[in-house]
Amino acid sequence: MSFESRPSGRAVDALRAVRLTRNYTKHAEGSVLIECGDTKVICTASIEEKVPGFLKGKGQGWLTAEYGMLPRSTHSRMDREAAKGKQSGRTQEIQRLIGRSLRAAFDLEAFGERTLHLDCDVIQADGGTRTASITGAMVAAYDAFGKLVASGALAAVPLRHFVAAISVGVYQGMPVLDLDYVEDSGCDTDMNIIMTESGHFIEVQGTAEGAAFDRAVMNRLLDLADGGIRDLVKLQKQALGLAE
Amino acid sequence: MSFESRPSGRAVDALRAVRLTRNYTKHAEGSVLIECGDTKVICTASIEEKVPGFLKGKGQGWLTAEYGMLPRSTHSRMDREAAKGKQSGRTQEIQRLIGRSLRAAFDLEAFGERTLHLDCDVIQADGGTRTASITGAMVAAYDAFGKLVASGALAAVPLRHFVAAISVGVYQGMPVLDLDYVEDSGCDTDMNIIMTESGHFIEVQGTAEGAAFDRAVMNRLLDLADGGIRDLVKLQKQALGLAE
Amino acid sequence: MSFESRPSGRAVDALRAVRLTRNYTKHAEGSVLIECGDTKVICTASIEEKVPGFLKGKGQGWLTAEYGMLPRSTHSRMDREAAKGKQSGRTQEIQRLIGRSLRAAFDLEAFGERTLHLDCDVIQADGGTRTASITGAMVAAYDAFGKLVASGALAAVPLRHFVAAISVGVYQGMPVLDLDYVEDSGCDTDMNIIMTESGHFIEVQGTAEGAAFDRAVMNRLLDLADGGIRDLVKLQKQALGLAE
Amino acid sequence: MSFESRPSGRAVDALRAVRLTRNYTKHAEGSVLIECGDTKVICTASIEEKVPGFLKGKGQGWLTAEYGMLPRSTHSRMDREAAKGKQSGRTQEIQRLIGRSLRAAFDLEAFGERTLHLDCDVIQADGGTRTASITGAMVAAYDAFGKLVASGALAAVPLRHFVAAISVGVYQGMPVLDLDYVEDSGCDTDMNIIMTESGHFIEVQGTAEGAAFDRAVMNRLLDLADGGIRDLVKLQKQALGLAE
Amino acid sequence: MSFESRPSGRAVDALRAVRLTRNYTKHAEGSVLIECGDTKVICTASIEEKVPGFLKGKGQGWLTAEYGMLPRSTHSRMDREAAKGKQSGRTQEIQRLIGRSLRAAFDLEAFGERTLHLDCDVIQADGGTRTASITGAMVAAYDAFGKLVASGALAAVPLRHFVAAISVGVYQGMPVLDLDYVEDSGCDTDMNIIMTESGHFIEVQGTAEGAAFDRAVMNRLLDLADGGIRDLVKLQKQALGLAE
Amino acid sequence: MSFESRPSGRAVDALRAVRLTRNYTKHAEGSVLIECGDTKVICTASIEEKVPGFLKGKGQGWLTAEYGMLPRSTHSRMDREAAKGKQSGRTQEIQRLIGRSLRAAFDLEAFGERTLHLDCDVIQADGGTRTASITGAMVAAYDAFGKLVASGALAAVPLRHFVAAISVGVYQGMPVLDLDYVEDSGCDTDMNIIMTESGHFIEVQGTAEGAAFDRAVMNRLLDLADGGIRDLVKLQKQALGLAE
Repeated sequence: MSFESRPSGRAVDALRAVRLTRNYTKHAEGSVLIECGDTKVICTASIEEKVPGFLKGKGQGWLTAEYGMLPRSTHSRMDREAAKGKQSGRTQEIQRLIGRSLRAAFDLEAFGERTLHLDCDVIQADGGTRTASITGAMVAAYDAFGKLVASGALAAVPLRHFVAAISVGVYQGMPVLDLDYVEDSGCDTDMNIIMTESGHFIEVQGTAEGAAFDRAVMNRLLDLADGGIRDLVKLQKQALGLAE
Repeated sequence: MSFESRPSGRAVDALRAVRLTRNYTKHAEGSVLIECGDTKVICTASIEEKVPGFLKGKGQGWLTAEYGMLPRSTHSRMDREAAKGKQSGRTQEIQRLIGRSLRAAFDLEAFGERTLHLDCDVIQADGGTRTASITGAMVAAYDAFGKLVASGALAAVPLRHFVAAISVGVYQGMPVLDLDYVEDSGCDTDMNIIMTESGHFIEVQGTAEGAAFDRAVMNRLLDLADGGIRDLVKLQKQALGLAE
Repeated sequence: MSFESRPSGRAVDALRAVRLTRNYTKHAEGSVLIECGDTKVICTASIEEKVPGFLKGKGQGWLTAEYGMLPRSTHSRMDREAAKGKQSGRTQEIQRLIGRSLRAAFDLEAFGERTLHLDCDVIQADGGTRTASITGAMVAAYDAFGKLVASGALAAVPLRHFVAAISVGVYQGMPVLDLDYVEDSGCDTDMNIIMTESGHFIEVQGTAEGAAFDRAVMNRLLDLADGGIRDLVKLQKQALGLAE
Repeated sequence: MSFESRPSGRAVDALRAVRLTRNYTKHAEGSVLIECGDTKVICTASIEEKVPGFLKGKGQGWLTAEYGMLPRSTHSRMDREAAKGKQSGRTQEIQRLIGRSLRAAFDLEAFGERTLHLDCDVIQADGGTRTASITGAMVAAYDAFGKLVASGALAAVPLRHFVAAISVGVYQGMPVLDLDYVEDSGCDTDMNIIMTESGHFIEVQGTAEGAAFDRAVMNRLLDLADGGIRDLVKLQKQALGLAE
Repeated sequence: MSFESRPSGRAVDALRAVRLTRNYTKHAEGSVLIECGDTKVICTASIEEKVPGFLKGKGQGWLTAEYGMLPRSTHSRMDREAAKGKQSGRTQEIQRLIGRSLRAAFDLEAFGERTLHLDCDVIQADGGTRTASITGAMVAAYDAFGKLVASGALAAVPLRHFVAAISVGVYQGMPVLDLDYVEDSGCDTDMNIIMTESGHFIEVQGTAEGAAFDRAVMNRLLDLADGGIRDLVKLQKQALGLAE
Repeated sequence: MSFESRPSGRAVDALRAVRLTRNYTKHAEGSVLIECGDTKVICTASIEEKVPGFLKGKGQGWLTAEYGMLPRSTHSRMDREAAKGKQSGRTQEIQRLIGRSLRAAFDLEAFGERTLHLDCDVIQADGGTRTASITGAMVAAYDAFGKLVASGALAAVPLRHFVAAISVGVYQGMPVLDLDYVEDSGCDTDMNIIMTESGHFIEVQGTAEGAAFDRAVMNRLLDLADGGIRDLVKLQKQALGLAE
């Protein structure tokens, strides 16, 4: 099967339309709906005035993440994890990834003995839910820290650098950016990349589901991701009303 | 504490503003966002082409419901049930109630050997999430049956009667309709009532959390619910474009 | 199907024979075997000298309940919940109901920092196990408080009012009191009502399993329950040797 | 601590009073209340018309046992295993022992493709609950097989031999028969012995909780058990109306 | 089936070849590979500087054991208990046995407020894994205590007596010592015996899986075990470089 | 902290000593002990003559993997996952990785309706247990397929290409190959790479635990991994007696 065009008609290096809606729900300190094409994830950031046991008394904060999908966010209904009584391996893998990525974005030593809980809940899935979660959670977390600054509890948002995430992959032999569900289901290679605003790597997770891929393809995938991430960071900053 | 007025300023027999958005997400056969004031619940209806074991070969269908709250749908963050590995007693009680109420709305013998799964997920909670779930799931279920009619799989929506649900309670000594979170937290009695469009009872679940209440109060609460349910059924039919 | 007579031959407003045996087992502070016809439940009340975390240091007590059925208390053997590793939704719903009902009977602020554990274990089931549990647990709890009074730990039993519970329902179109298993299996409506000795409502939980029922039937069911509860409270007081 | 007399005043080789009440509850095919002094266990035998997967199509039957204690059957309240979500190691050990012991009593090849479920539920504990369970379950199982004979489903009770169980132990240096709770708590050695009516061993489970014991003590314990078991089998046969 | 010879050709009172390798892995305070014929178990002893809640502040120590089998330690692959989410009844029974047996070997009052964790993991199974675990864990525990003596934390290994374990059984009608898998699968009776170096009993656990056995066989089995245990204790002491 | 030398004295591109012992245990169709320095993992491959439900009747095979660590394989004792009742997120992530990597090595369509179960159990951990598991499991799987070839069940080992895995990372600012525990604990970036014998990528999983890293470092890490993998594949083939 050789490449003719992407099912969506997008250029190989084009992101889907991204929309970030802040203050999407009213109780959370940060609450963002991120839409990447038809993928929609509610990302909330909640502040708790204590840290887990292993950090008590160390004067620093913590950040942790959980991820879930509504049962009918997907093409066919999935079992509800709460009803099954356990989170799948996939769910745990994703929420560990979100947590690690966002801990890299902030300086938790400057956060005080608090925990930031990020909850990423997919209400509609069309590929790329984990990367959308990270990109959206970045904004929700920033907003939650902003609340603490506004209330005087923190002097400044303890930002190290903006972080965003995107998928790249090999679809019908062609490296492409930001796979949607149709591409994802049929692709040979799927790679999720999390980078800082300055183009440094935080996480790289690639899997050849079909044919193994060579170094040249690897290089092309890293290039595509680099471009996508830079665009996403711009959108995050616009949404937050920050200068780029 | 004697009654002066409701915190929201509503009349004692006034519902909160209700909004029903159909086709809220794209994969489910029925998908409704119901908003009752600040309470927001996504209700999806999914059709599965088989029945549970106890109904196999009987030629009839089944309907079942699950309920969940996003961790930060509430004032302070709740633990995620999937992460804790079990659904609380409250969650199970609510999803059993939703299932019983909606099974009363449809003639499952005319449904064929299929199961309708209703998922009610609260994205923002401000009191009355279980009654909003039932009222919204009624519309989502109707839409899902409508898809089967449209595809020729069913001759007609197997409707017995429309069903809606509302809470009533005693707030500062005064019976009131449709409690929001502030009223719910401070009320003496909380009752959830599920009725058909013709004013017959399907479920009555009342609890005196403070003082036990007498028969006169009981009668007044039933009257209030009767009025509220009639309004809700009108709104359901309007949303579906049906004649009242 | 129109009503001719109850399978048991009882009048529509007649309770089954009730027997309350105090001190049924020897270790518990309160231990009652309640028999309502062929339904038999062991209700024990155990005093623990501490309260759950959320009440620590508040100077008041707590009361909680658990419910279980022996696997062969029923017509065909049920799976043992301890072996399955979880309590069913029905079990949790019932034990939450028992707890709420009995917390309404006593003034827990006058109990000190103690917890009263009620255990209701069905050894033979013939309908109405949850209402028998509540009626029997009332007596077991009273006995346990009595032990604390006898030992000087409390000045008086912190009674607010006696509480009892009974089922009512619509059997073959006819409202009846205190359904046994045969009636319960075939009835259209099943309602459990918990009231105080003065006829005020604590809980009302009614479900139309067949046809929805109208307000006139509702009123008749509430009347029947009122009569049944008054009789049960008399029997509770007799068993405890108290003046009516 | 040297031996003066048993706390109960019993002779070293004396059983506690044993009472076997058949047909204790009404639904089970066999239902026996066994009382050994203050230890009381409800033993029910339930027939299921199928076998576990590993025996399907082999033309033979199966027998299995479960054991539980009501939370307040003991001096201080134990947590309910169903609520904790798992059976303790002790519970599993006991129910495996009961199952093995009773499988030795019957010829399951002559039982047809059926399963006999034994449920032993302790309603009051005063030492020796596992041995009382086995001795009582023997009678309940016999009754259940008797029902199948009466209905013509079996030609005869598939009995290999009667089986009973008793504890022996070393209390204050003295070997004694049938330990009650006070002796059990303070003993050095506790041994449970299950034997056939002809004095052959089915199970021996002894533990030196204090000092290890020598061969002479072992021999004395086996002698005591032998006498106790012979008495118990007589009582089982009397209860069943069988010739000794 | 009458006895001709053992499948392995061993004499009825002969142990399999036993090999004890100390310091088998590098992190544990005591680490022993025990091989009894083809049965191989890694026994590690880990010291933790605290005791379980029920012993806090009592100035004494605790010892506990866990047991596991690698999924393919057996002839056909077993499910992994960690993946199934629970330990089988058999596993719990064995680890409780190992713990009791080893607690009898040491004087835990002289251990300080520490816990010794014994982990017995079967890497290859050919019968007798629980007795090999006990015999090997004795040596691992001794080594761990030795580390504390070497570091000055204890004055001496708090030894009460050496403890070893062996199985005996009736194979084709003949009492034999130390059953391997082939014998174990086909035997009538299987008994595990744990004794001290001076021939006193700590545990006796015998089960007649086929025919019940009489007192004469019991006596022969106890004799065989006595001889086997004495040999095993010699091997333990040799491995530790101690005088017999 | 700037780089001076590796704690082990190894060159930056040097593997630890690798030893592959085939037929390490006797029951499994493939059984390999892999030692990479002080990291030791038992890898077994078990053949089951059926496939999971989702593959039934499709004429192809399946391969799945599980991973575990003995509680004291690590510096301080970890809780046993079987006792805790669940596998950690880390464990699940690793076993999913092993499964994906090995499914890429073989042509499962040519395997028939069989499942190959790989079990990787760490008996001593010193960094790199997941990559050692993959490298060792490759050999165990090859051996298991070899058994089927020897028995005539398969015509040839359904090999697509050899697969091996290695870690690379940034230690004190310096990219290095094959991190041991000391390096792993202190490193900024840890990346696990799985490649085929021809240098194509199957998986890349990199995490910046400290500073994010740039593209130049990424390139150097990929180069180091490429060299390490080529060496490991040579060792796998030598162990199997295959021509390189």
